[in-house]
Parts: sequence; C-alpha cells; structure tokens
Amino acid sequence: MEELIVIKIGGNIIDDSKAVNAFLNDFAVIASPKILIHGGGKLATQLSSKLGIETKMVEGRRVTDEETLKVVAMTYAGWINKTIVAGLQSKKCNALGLCGADANLIPALKRTVKDIDYGWVGDIDKANVNTSFLINILSIGVTPVIAPISSDPEGQLLNINADNIARTIAEAMSAYYRVKLVYCFEKNGLLMDVNDENSVIDEINSARVEQLKSEGIIAEGMVPKVDNALEALCNGVNEVVIGHAKSILQILKNEKGFGTTIKPSAIV
Amino acid sequence: MEELIVIKIGGNIIDDSKAVNAFLNDFAVIASPKILIHGGGKLATQLSSKLGIETKMVEGRRVTDEETLKVVAMTYAGWINKTIVAGLQSKKCNALGLCGADANLIPALKRTVKDIDYGWVGDIDKANVNTSFLINILSIGVTPVIAPISSDPEGQLLNINADNIARTIAEAMSAYYRVKLVYCFEKNGLLMDVNDENSVIDEINSARVEQLKSEGIIAEGMVPKVDNALEALCNGVNEVVIGHAKSILQILKNEKGFGTTIKPSAIV
Repeated sequence: MEELIVIKIGGNIIDDSKAVNAFLNDFAVIASPKILIHGGGKLATQLSSKLGIETKMVEGRRVTDEETLKVVAMTYAGWINKTIVAGLQSKKCNALGLCGADANLIPALKRTVKDIDYGWVGDIDKANVNTSFLINILSIGVTPVIAPISSDPEGQLLNINADNIARTIAEAMSAYYRVKLVYCFEKNGLLMDVNDENSVIDEINSARVEQLKSEGIIAEGMVPKVDNALEALCNGVNEVVIGHAKSILQILKNEKGFGTTIKPSAIV
Repeated sequence: MEELIVIKIGGNIIDDSKAVNAFLNDFAVIASPKILIHGGGKLATQLSSKLGIETKMVEGRRVTDEETLKVVAMTYAGWINKTIVAGLQSKKCNALGLCGADANLIPALKRTVKDIDYGWVGDIDKANVNTSFLINILSIGVTPVIAPISSDPEGQLLNINADNIARTIAEAMSAYYRVKLVYCFEKNGLLMDVNDENSVIDEINSARVEQLKSEGIIAEGMVPKVDNALEALCNGVNEVVIGHAKSILQILKNEKGFGTTIKPSAIV
C-alpha cells in the first residue's frame, strides 16, 4: 500500500501568517500523496466581534447561530482556505480547496440537541465519506485542502470540528493507503510539563494516556485530540503523531524529540 | 463532440435566495456536462459597509484594496460558493466549488495600473487555464461551480470579473466540447425597449450589435457582456445566449422569446 499523509493544522498557527507560510513551505515538499485539513483560528471570532455578533463557546466548541454560520463559512472556506491554496500553488503544490459539501466529500448531519444546543454544528456521516473522489484527485497529483464546513442532505451548511474531519478522512482512506495522521499545533507534542517544551513524550499508548489524563497532564484541549488519535488507530489508521507545525518534516521522518507518536496498547 | 453548458449567473439574482434556489432546481436537472460561474451580487458591498470599509466602483468594477479583497474572497469563495454547492448537493447535483486558484484552474496576473489603480484585481492568463482538470472532474460526473477569485504566481489572491471567467472557460473548453455559453441575469435578454421585458431581441449578430450600441439600446453593463459574447464566438464557443435565470431550461431548448442568441455576422 502507498503511504498517505493526512495533516491537520490548527491552533494558533493559523492566526500567524509567517508561521503558516513556513509550514506551507515544508508541506509543499512532502513527496507522498497528502491531504491538509485546517482549523479556523481566531479570525472568525475577530470578524464576529467587528460585526457585533456575540461569540459563545461551550466546552471549547463554537455555538453557531445563523449569523455565526455565515462568518465561519466565509472565514474558513473563503479566506483561510483560499489563502492556503494560493500559497501552496505559489510553492508548486497543486492544491485544491474543499469543504465537506464539495463533491459530497463529507456528508454531515446537524448535531441533535441534548443538553446544549450548538446551533448549526454538524457531525460527520462517517459511512459516506467520498473516498473515491479523493483517490481520483490524488491520482492526478492534486492535494486536497479541507475547510471545516460541510452540509446536510437538505443543503444546510454546518460548522464541523476540524480534528474530527482529519480523523474521519484518515480512517476512511486507510482502506486504500497506509495512513499517517499528524495533528500539528503550537506545541512540540504532549508535554510532561506544560511549561517545558523540551518535556515531549516521544511515544504513548492508550493505557498511559488514561494514566496521564487522571494525573491532569493530558487536560483541556488535549483530551479530545488524544481521544481522536486513539480512535483513529482503532479504525485502521497506521500512525498518529501530535506535534509542532514548524517540525512537520522532522515528524514525518520520525526524528526523536519531534512530536508524540500515539500507539495502540499492544505495541508499546 | 459532446455538448458542454457553461452558465454564468450574476446580477441581482445572486442576492435573492428564492430566485437562486429556483435556478438551482433547473440547473440540477440539466443532463449535459455543465459548469456554473457565479458573480458576487451585493453581499460584498453590504459586508464592507458593516465593517466600515468604503466601496469604490470605477466603471462598474470594484476597486479592491487589502480589506476589500478579504471581503470578496470571503463572500464569493466562502458564503456564496458554498451555499450554491450545498444547495446543488441537496438537489442531487454533485457540485464542486472552486476558485481560480484551486487546482491552478485559472492562473491570473494583477492588472497593471494605467489610468486607474483597481488594486487587487486580476486578469486571466488565458493560455494556462487547467482544462485537463475540468475534463477529469466532468468525466466523473462532478459539476464545477466557480467563484470569481483567483491568484497570481506569487500566491496573491485576486478579484476577477465573473463574465470574463465564464468566457475564458467556455473558450478553453471549446477545444474538447461543443460549448454553449449562457449569461443569466435578471432580464429576459437584450431588450429593444429597456422598460419592456417582452421586447426581447431573439437573435443578433456583430454588425447589429454595433448599430444598437450606437443607438444607445445596448448600453452600460450590457456593453461588456455583449462584447464578451462576440469574442467568445470568435474563439471557438459555438453559441452564446443572454437571458433570464428563471428561463434557463427554455433557453437551453432554444425556445423563442427566451433569451437573445448572439451569432457571428456570417450566420444571421
């Protein structure tokens, strides 16, 4: 099986155009077939604020009313996605910007309201990811760049979590490729000491994840990220790494000290 | 040669969600391979105004400074493009939203400053339109939906005239398909009397165009539209029609009274 690299870039990186540009320089030279998924950064919050739209976050997730949906569709699928695509084109990487609605790539459904009404937030219909479209465009040398927006069967746009998109794409493509999934953000990996960027945990398995969660070392935003990683491994993804966007090439070469590789229990 | 339908939808239609939905219902059922190019409507102007950005138009063209570029990229390639794509998906038309930067579809260059500095406005590098990408995705049953944004070789996003994109795509694809280009807007076609929607001119050739221009019957926004149509015919496009978005199916069937067919001089 051929290797496929699936990279999610998010966190504060997206808000720093110099860091994005440096990352894209590295991303452009990756020789394997590759897919980039990007988050939204703070741009949506800034635009909402300029427009007098209140930003409501519940457990780190954006509550998406009608006006906020317009803002996130514009910033994620419009400005950020096309800026990345144009940047990659200038670096001779033939990028294609997509949201989940395009080519019916990632069908979604509005999240049902239980305790919290997140508004126009969607969950992915995992069984129906359009892998054949991705395989087709990868085969002609095109690199998909995916924004965290999709739609439901009635054509309603929905705000989707980018980490979930990355995991779902990686899982679905693992039937056809040896998939390496990398979550890039602004830290060097999982840290034993959150204040020490040199305390990167090189490898971790699910048992150790549970232990570090109970000790509060894996906390807050890292919890869903690590849970996503473990689930991806259960569902066919070959390798998951969490690390700094600036070290993507070292991470892909499995250089020690760059990123945390998450492994199923049986292996470590 | 197989037929390809290239439709530009613009004018006030884009601002009227019911009219857009009705148009998409019709567009979705067109059996031939098809490409949709959309304009921006008034949304960019409205968003600029809410953000306190002054809108400057010179000869009907938007002067695009740094902030305005962000606004048009967000509204055209983000909100409008993805709303259309999601709408078409709900109508079982497998749409793929694109801007000119995606898959290097429509390489562009910043317009050189002569009398007027239009800012981040681009002209299309016609010789380098990525027809092979379009042919590939049409062959797998995917329908391109193109927003009037592209980028230059340095990765700079640019605001591009949607009528020009429609013409350029139609011309480039005419090497591979029998191309019918339709400019849809909010009037029934070229009108002998601008106040009488029943005064549609059924057919017109270039000589008659010049005459009607000199009489002021073809004026203002219609002039570049008609010039675009004539140029497209010179460059390989088989047929060009200008008509109302609500009549797209009648126009495609060449029903009399629906739209103005523009023909090269030799034919009429």
